[in-house]
Amino acid sequence: MTRMALGVSYDGASWHGWQTQPGGQTVQDALEAALSEFLAEPASTICAGRTDTGVHALGQVVHLDTVAQRRDESWVRGLNALLPSSIAVQWAQVVPDDFHARFSALSRSYIYILRNARVRSPLAHGRVGWVARPLAMEPMAQAAAHLLGEHDFSSFRSSQCQAASPVRTLHALDIERRGDYFIFTLRANAFLHHMVRNLIGALVYIGLGRQPADWMLDLLAQKDRRLAAPTFAPDGLYFAQVEYPARHGLPASSAQDALARIPAW
Amino acid sequence: MTRMALGVSYDGASWHGWQTQPGGQTVQDALEAALSEFLAEPASTICAGRTDTGVHALGQVVHLDTVAQRRDESWVRGLNALLPSSIAVQWAQVVPDDFHARFSALSRSYIYILRNARVRSPLAHGRVGWVARPLAMEPMAQAAAHLLGEHDFSSFRSSQCQAASPVRTLHALDIERRGDYFIFTLRANAFLHHMVRNLIGALVYIGLGRQPADWMLDLLAQKDRRLAAPTFAPDGLYFAQVEYPARHGLPASSAQDALARIPAW
Repeated sequence: MTRMALGVSYDGASWHGWQTQPGGQTVQDALEAALSEFLAEPASTICAGRTDTGVHALGQVVHLDTVAQRRDESWVRGLNALLPSSIAVQWAQVVPDDFHARFSALSRSYIYILRNARVRSPLAHGRVGWVARPLAMEPMAQAAAHLLGEHDFSSFRSSQCQAASPVRTLHALDIERRGDYFIFTLRANAFLHHMVRNLIGALVYIGLGRQPADWMLDLLAQKDRRLAAPTFAPDGLYFAQVEYPARHGLPASSAQDALARIPAW
Repeated sequence: MTRMALGVSYDGASWHGWQTQPGGQTVQDALEAALSEFLAEPASTICAGRTDTGVHALGQVVHLDTVAQRRDESWVRGLNALLPSSIAVQWAQVVPDDFHARFSALSRSYIYILRNARVRSPLAHGRVGWVARPLAMEPMAQAAAHLLGEHDFSSFRSSQCQAASPVRTLHALDIERRGDYFIFTLRANAFLHHMVRNLIGALVYIGLGRQPADWMLDLLAQKDRRLAAPTFAPDGLYFAQVEYPARHGLPASSAQDALARIPAW
């Protein structure tokens, strides 16, 4: 038996999220169908992070076990020939048996791309969030600083979140402006369900001046999802990168690498 | 009667090109339907450059005449509320009666975005051209230099081209590398049918080493479309910008501005 890890990217607009479900039309369904055909045996995968409907991936990582023998190089080409245009395998690599796409992960990075312009962009439709009124960088950056470190993120957790604990460690929340776009890069040990979209929703409220930057401290302290801003649109959210211990020898990459892999515009 | 100019952007992947046709599903059909509803009168438009199926626009310019009275600001908001997500009006402005979107244009700029990486990108699907084998910048840049100036571009002209003359003046053909992408920016007084895609096809042949840089000189001299490379895919082609005399007072922009208006990745 061989354990393989795959790096996978997808356009989430076409799919009902990652996780397999009875109605089908999920990324996992499509990937496992391609794998089963490629390997000529049933395939089941475990991913680093389950993405919701409409959420994209630049650096999703999955693992699977197989008894089939395939040359390393043929994995990427063979699978991509079988996958729809909205999903692609970026790399494939044999990993030790103790590697686990989810439990071995040290940290995850997400990128949120937010268009801040009066007029919507047809070419960015489904790929970026959109706020028409001007956002102020400074209060958003102040609020972001409040979020760094270990916190109980209950105020930013979906009611359907199945995690045992609401405590997470946010290592980074950087905000960069590029033309009409704000780019938010977040890195944490792990994220709660809807956590990034709920954080973006609160940051946007602050950027619009509906709440001061210190509102973020109140939300953290109150631990009550009902007090925070609505969950922001999935369109601009990208699962960018997963960090694993170096001993597993997976391709090194960063969220910035991931950003460079989407169209260089 | 008022003559209005509109700046229009669209995702060409959803449309059968610009020009109205019996089967519908063209950008002109969709725009004129929205205009007719907005103005409560039939509307017909003239554009700066007719784009083919699959070709995108960042800075298409159209004009139309209307007797309807609408406040300037409401044009953009009102039309965008009526247009599908793959088309948006970026600006609207009253222009003098002698302004003509096509005949007043001094130059047009196109951008071609080409992915040069072993693996395709799901997020760039339909929005970029793709070449898997490595392209060399230097011979492509040499070949591009041969094309500058006034030439008979018959070797790069579709057999369906309706232009009276095959002579065009190419003011610029810049090639820039950004990560996995090559970005070609072309500016000419006007372009023949398929001219940009045919030029990109020839440059790719040269970049792959199938032909030397000086092959471009031969193609220009031979004036025979059958000798050049195949027409390249429309996916990566963007009608970026149209230049008009300053006296018309249209929003100043450049192809680089246009590039900054697509997602800032």
